[in-house]
Amino acid sequence: MKNIVLLGGTGSIGLQTIDIIKEYPDAFNLYALAFGTQVDVAKPIIEELKPQVVIVKDGETKSHLESTLTYDVKVYAGLDALSEIVKHDQVDLVVNALLGSVGLKPTLEAIRAKKQIAFANKETLVTAGHLVMEEARKYGVDLLPVDSEHAAIHQCLRGENLKELKRMVITASGGSFRDRTREELVGVTKEDALKHPNWSMGAKITIDSATMMNKGLEVIEAHWLFGVPYDQIDVIMHKESVIHSMVEFTDQSVMAQLGTPDMRIPIQYALTYPERYPYNMSEGLDLLSFGTLNFQEMSFERFPCLKMAYESGREGGSMTTVLNAANEEAVSLFLNGKVDFLGIENLIQNQLEQHKTITSPDLGTILTIDQETRERVRHEVS
Amino acid sequence: MKNIVLLGGTGSIGLQTIDIIKEYPDAFNLYALAFGTQVDVAKPIIEELKPQVVIVKDGETKSHLESTLTYDVKVYAGLDALSEIVKHDQVDLVVNALLGSVGLKPTLEAIRAKKQIAFANKETLVTAGHLVMEEARKYGVDLLPVDSEHAAIHQCLRGENLKELKRMVITASGGSFRDRTREELVGVTKEDALKHPNWSMGAKITIDSATMMNKGLEVIEAHWLFGVPYDQIDVIMHKESVIHSMVEFTDQSVMAQLGTPDMRIPIQYALTYPERYPYNMSEGLDLLSFGTLNFQEMSFERFPCLKMAYESGREGGSMTTVLNAANEEAVSLFLNGKVDFLGIENLIQNQLEQHKTITSPDLGTILTIDQETRERVRHEVS
Repeated sequence: MKNIVLLGGTGSIGLQTIDIIKEYPDAFNLYALAFGTQVDVAKPIIEELKPQVVIVKDGETKSHLESTLTYDVKVYAGLDALSEIVKHDQVDLVVNALLGSVGLKPTLEAIRAKKQIAFANKETLVTAGHLVMEEARKYGVDLLPVDSEHAAIHQCLRGENLKELKRMVITASGGSFRDRTREELVGVTKEDALKHPNWSMGAKITIDSATMMNKGLEVIEAHWLFGVPYDQIDVIMHKESVIHSMVEFTDQSVMAQLGTPDMRIPIQYALTYPERYPYNMSEGLDLLSFGTLNFQEMSFERFPCLKMAYESGREGGSMTTVLNAANEEAVSLFLNGKVDFLGIENLIQNQLEQHKTITSPDLGTILTIDQETRERVRHEVS
Repeated sequence: MKNIVLLGGTGSIGLQTIDIIKEYPDAFNLYALAFGTQVDVAKPIIEELKPQVVIVKDGETKSHLESTLTYDVKVYAGLDALSEIVKHDQVDLVVNALLGSVGLKPTLEAIRAKKQIAFANKETLVTAGHLVMEEARKYGVDLLPVDSEHAAIHQCLRGENLKELKRMVITASGGSFRDRTREELVGVTKEDALKHPNWSMGAKITIDSATMMNKGLEVIEAHWLFGVPYDQIDVIMHKESVIHSMVEFTDQSVMAQLGTPDMRIPIQYALTYPERYPYNMSEGLDLLSFGTLNFQEMSFERFPCLKMAYESGREGGSMTTVLNAANEEAVSLFLNGKVDFLGIENLIQNQLEQHKTITSPDLGTILTIDQETRERVRHEVS
């Protein structure tokens, strides 16, 4: 029985993690649930799975939750509680499904406590990959990726030697606007952008898919997770999302992982690793029903966010912190109707151009740069 | 340095094995070369790589070879010499690229001597899989498949647990006549049949591809190599031959191995396993140059040989011995112009219908049934 701390329990990944925990009650126990403010979403989960600890964003949410629960549970409020709970003795596995760089500190604490980590919080690696991976190496902790692309690469590398790797190929569905030219992006609405053709995901990642920044963040995440230089990470357009990603070895063999677009499969993989448990919540992949799979070259001109991500990644240091913070803030402004779709990439580009890279920034520096970047983005729009 | 015995050195797989041995002279030494009668093909290989032992089919070939060689080497004639050389102390790796069930005895001897075996002789497993795998288990020997499909499955299973396997999917290019109806097969020539759309291979396997018997033999080979029931082995048509085969696990993850249609890649894999060496003899896979990959359902009506293979495999015992012997003989008759293309499947069907299965036949029984089947096929045509 694995005692699980779930960080980000009311988001898309969090709720799908709950599905897996419920599917295997003998294997998994929800020890602690952390979420922001969505009491109505969290309440039935808490009452059904009875975690020993619940952590929420603030005191107000804590009071609200406590007044509505029929079940007696310890509730804490605030980010510091996340960093505390992940290192608790009884915890075996931390699922980090937090959104954004807020996941950085709890990730570092979970690593230092040598917990198994299922990792769905790519912004943490983008913003401070060098710090996270340095700790992961030091404490011998393997970060198990939950993103379907990185879970695919993780599976392609099972039983293999990373030294024999030639390149990785991350596939991209193309997002909501893949069939539009840049001219056709003028004036697109939030509702249009939120219609992802293949995957059902949260709002932020769906917008990131439409701008292709999501793929850029994944490239940076892959760089850190697998210790591979950017020149060995390619992105290709594969609109069916059947091949989740590939690895080519020096002997020219290419290994690929394929599946249906069901995030619960990579989540389950990270929870059960190194074992695979039967998955019964949806039908398996039927290649014959697709008939054809398509592959196209990725255009940096069409998707400048991907280009910015590669450039920031190659620059390294604090530049990816700026990339991530500017993107998070710009997407938030778009979702709130404060900036149009093409404005997202302009806001990010401006921040990257203004920033002078700091090599190997420490945690304090990263958090400062993160905050300052967000403020500058907000200021530019207001 | 691995000392290699190459059985079947002048065939397609044999010559491509020589390419790999020459590519890595510090890793591989051709200790012994066995071939049939093609002295002109073998001579330059022998003079360049200077094996310590050469084995040929008969005394006549031996005399011919000895009279033409400038280099002094021990030459032996006859099948028994194959079974002797594979167990020699100095031998590390046996490449079995023999054609047909003649490879059975040397395979068993190599297993008993606990040699690493690179295995390209599927007929041996089809005719006597239960004997071969029983010995392989007993002596703890891993048969490393050289067939691109089985090498693909072997790679998909690296670092995995066979108990978590749900099914295997073997891909089929469709062979020379994939776009023809059965009516359009009447009167096709040997030359037409030998034009494989994707792979450059020997004559027998190219005809087997056109009848789809090759895929049937591969299904039976996969059953034995990986210990998987027939109900868990599927075949799908994939005309580009880019995905060489796939494995689906119980968690619905599908692993696939992809590559160019270059047999030297799986040969090298079997020779270097568990390592992967850089392969530089051809360009790597460029999925973008394909653009699309196609998948279609396989029809047992269109390809009755595949149906016969599944039925023989499920029946088990001596039935697959009959399947293989009848097929080898029928293909030989077709290549010699004694029977037309559609006659191949009729000859096999007749033998299968006549045969009463013997469960768990021993080696002597298998060899007898093999010979009797061949004679009956020849008799039917003469």
